[in-house]
Parts: sequence; structure tokens; C-alpha cells
Amino acid sequence: MRNAPLGIFDSGVGGLTVVRAVQQLLPSEDIVYLGDTARVPYGSKSPETIRQFSHEDVRFLLDRGVKTVVVACNTATAHALPSLQERYQVPIIGVIEPGVEAVLADPGAQRIGIIATRGTVRSHAYQHALALRRTGLILHATPAPLLVPLVEEDWLDHPSTLAALHTYLDPMLDRGIDTLLLACTHYPLLIPVLRHFLPEGVRLVDSATTCAEHVKNDLTKLDLLSEKADPGKLEIHLTDLSDQFEDLSRRFLARSPGRIMRVSL
Amino acid sequence: MRNAPLGIFDSGVGGLTVVRAVQQLLPSEDIVYLGDTARVPYGSKSPETIRQFSHEDVRFLLDRGVKTVVVACNTATAHALPSLQERYQVPIIGVIEPGVEAVLADPGAQRIGIIATRGTVRSHAYQHALALRRTGLILHATPAPLLVPLVEEDWLDHPSTLAALHTYLDPMLDRGIDTLLLACTHYPLLIPVLRHFLPEGVRLVDSATTCAEHVKNDLTKLDLLSEKADPGKLEIHLTDLSDQFEDLSRRFLARSPGRIMRVSL
Repeated sequence: MRNAPLGIFDSGVGGLTVVRAVQQLLPSEDIVYLGDTARVPYGSKSPETIRQFSHEDVRFLLDRGVKTVVVACNTATAHALPSLQERYQVPIIGVIEPGVEAVLADPGAQRIGIIATRGTVRSHAYQHALALRRTGLILHATPAPLLVPLVEEDWLDHPSTLAALHTYLDPMLDRGIDTLLLACTHYPLLIPVLRHFLPEGVRLVDSATTCAEHVKNDLTKLDLLSEKADPGKLEIHLTDLSDQFEDLSRRFLARSPGRIMRVSL
Repeated sequence: MRNAPLGIFDSGVGGLTVVRAVQQLLPSEDIVYLGDTARVPYGSKSPETIRQFSHEDVRFLLDRGVKTVVVACNTATAHALPSLQERYQVPIIGVIEPGVEAVLADPGAQRIGIIATRGTVRSHAYQHALALRRTGLILHATPAPLLVPLVEEDWLDHPSTLAALHTYLDPMLDRGIDTLLLACTHYPLLIPVLRHFLPEGVRLVDSATTCAEHVKNDLTKLDLLSEKADPGKLEIHLTDLSDQFEDLSRRFLARSPGRIMRVSL
């Protein structure tokens, strides 16, 4: 079981930022990745539909014998994680708890800005998890739906992106946030532009990196770390395949994705 | 058969701009609308997937006894229309021929700009249909993938939208286009901002209005116009339902959409 692959899924290819972070921390793990590109995005859809799609995604990965499942999608974690954990036997890890822990790792964090898809913000999953852990936090959560298509277009420092960042972030900066949580797996690509955009002293927390650390801790605790010495293999399955998805995969993974398989759920 | 409803489908709710135009021209027709909101958008997906989804959409409408099907989605028309027309007995009308005819209605039209989804541009369906009909045309087709999410966000005159329009349109304006074809059913909402943006003398052609006229002509020719005197009924079916989709439906239709039904395909 230890040498079985890790399963990781997302609504599309954004979750490859999590894959990349996991590969850096756990280089000998085999990974089976599923991106539901035929139905991407999940972020604007209803909780009911997101749950149905997420169950189908997990069943696909379980059929491939994975030892644990990482939900590398904030929207799916926000709406489906409890129902997935209830239904299946393998450990299922979402991106929200790791993000929340990383925010609170700074004992001075007090005024937290959160940007995410509409679905994630509306679920109140981050707001709830943060409020449960530390009293007196001041939370500003804003849906930032344009950032996903802007990142996919590779318009990272286009005037259109800067104008969108002003609209989304200026109100929370005016209210003096000390931490900005990037609660969507597409957003790590915006980190360079955000470092310029944000005033000094605002800490950036991104859910991809923090999730990878959480996966490592969980696998260690559960005694499920791979014992193999060779570098792990990565298998990428997408429900739709196009030049654009291949191109995006390369950017999110920061290297060639190898052969991508098209699958039906 | 004449009094059977018209079936109209789109990947999402953008096709309601076509519904609105059809209702204005043919007020006594009953309409059954299907928006595949669970899998929207189609514009960034592969031809194979777009065809598969389009066949499922048409079968849903045929099961509801429609007399004809309007493909109110440029991407689906571009990739699936011939295969739909081959497979099914009822007349199936796309948005591309009407758009092409409207462009060429001006005998002076010579330098044509086309904006559309990546899928529509890549299909070369508009470019091919235009080039077949008039020799010597100079065509500039540009994918404008950000415009759909910007319209959905209601950022019609946001700086982000203006910056995107500059990136998409400045190169074709520099090359002296005389006509701009809006080849996506989301774009009619941008007409007011585009009228300000474009220099005088550039003609705007939108596929929603021109498609409605084509539907009227086709129904007349086929002797399929409704004989009812009462105002037609509109039934809206969506494969996913959320506040955002209801809200968008109201904006695209320019009035209350009534009760929307959630359906599975």
C-alpha cells in the first residue's frame, strides 16, 4: 500500500501547482492526476453539481488503486470534502485546512484577506475554519472570478489583470489586511505580480505549497510514505484534451507534462 | 408540427441573447431552451468534446418534441453543425451562416474583423464561409477568451474590459477593418461599450440578431411558423442551477426568466 500512487484531482489543470509542490517535497511518490477539463470550471457552479462531479473524480482515482486522495481544488474541497471523507475509506486531504494552518502559523495574523472563486467564498469554508481556530480575526473574503481566466490567458502583468487586482484587493488593503490567502490553485502563478502589487508587510499564503506540506505530514503519520528510491512517476489524465490544456499543464507544472491521457468518467 | 416549440441550445446562458431576438421577431413561437451550464464553457474545449456535448444537447431537445433546433452557440455551430445536420431529421440552424450573410449584406465590406472564442476561431468556420462567398476579403480573426468572463462579471465598462478590448482590437483597427463581427452570443452585451470604443465607420454585426432573422426566414420557407395567436411560452432548462446563472439569465434575456428547471442530460 505504501508504494501505491497518490491520487490528486482538480476541476482542471490548476491542481498541477499542487502536484509540483508535492513532487518537490516527496520526489519518490508516484502520482495519478485527474483534471476534469471537460467540465472545468467548478468555481461558478452549484454545490450540488460540484459534489456530484467530485465523487466521480474520486471514484476514478480509487479505481486506479491510489493510497490517498488529495483534493487540489479549493471549490471542491469547500463543498465536497466532508461528503467524500464520509463515503470512502482512503484518507482524503483537502486544500483548506493546510491553508488555514499556514495563515495561523503567524501568531500576529489578525486581518486576513481571502481571494477565491465565487463558490469557495460562498461556502464560507475558509471563514468558518479560521474563525473556529482563533477568535477576534477580521476576515475579508472576496470572489475574484476573473483571475482564473486571466492566469489561463497568461496575462500575468497585463493592464487588464492589474485593473482586476485593484478592484478585488484595494478594498481589503484599505482595511489594513496583514495576510492575503490565495485560495485557488490557479493563483500561485500570480505570486510575482502580487509581490509587486501588495504593500510591504502583507504576507502571502498560497494553498498549493501549504497543501504539499500537509500531505507529507499526513503520509508520515499514517505510515504511508513510499519506500521506493527511484524518482516517482506522474500520470496525467484529463477528461478533455486540447492544445490549450497541454500548454497550461506545462505552465502550471513548470516543466513538460509528458504524455497526457484523455479519459471518460 | 407548426405549433410545436422551437428548440434552442447553448453551452450556457449566452444563447438567451438569441432567444430574446427570436421572441422579438416571432412572438407567438413557444421556445424550449437548454443551457449546458454544468459543463460551460465549450469555447476552450476540444472539437471532439464539443461535438459529443452538442449531440447530447440536441437529443434532449428532440425528446421534448421541438420542430427545429437552433444552435445558439458559435463554438458548437463551428464544430458540430454538419454532424448534427447529418444525424437528425429536423432542420438544425446554426449562428454562423446568418452572421456571414449579415456581414456580406454590405457590398462594400472588405476588411472583416472577427472576435470569438478560441474554439470558434480555430475551427476557421467563419473565415471559410466568408472566403467562399466573396473573393478578395481581408480577414482578421482573433480569439478573445476574456470577454466571456468579463461580460458574465458585468464589468462592461470596467478598466479591465477596456484593456482587454485594446489588446484584442487595436491590431485589427490598425489594419483598417470596416466591419467587426461579434461571433459569440455573449458579446451583444458589449455593443454599447463597443460603439464608443470603435472609430466611426466600423460596422458592428452581431450573430444573435442576425440568427433570429434567419430562423424566421427558414420557418417561413418550411411552412413551420406557429399558427397560435397567444404570446409564446419560454421554458428554460439548465444542467446546473445557481444564483449566478439565474442572474445572468435575467441580464441576457433583459427580463425575468421565470422558473428555470434543472435537468440532467
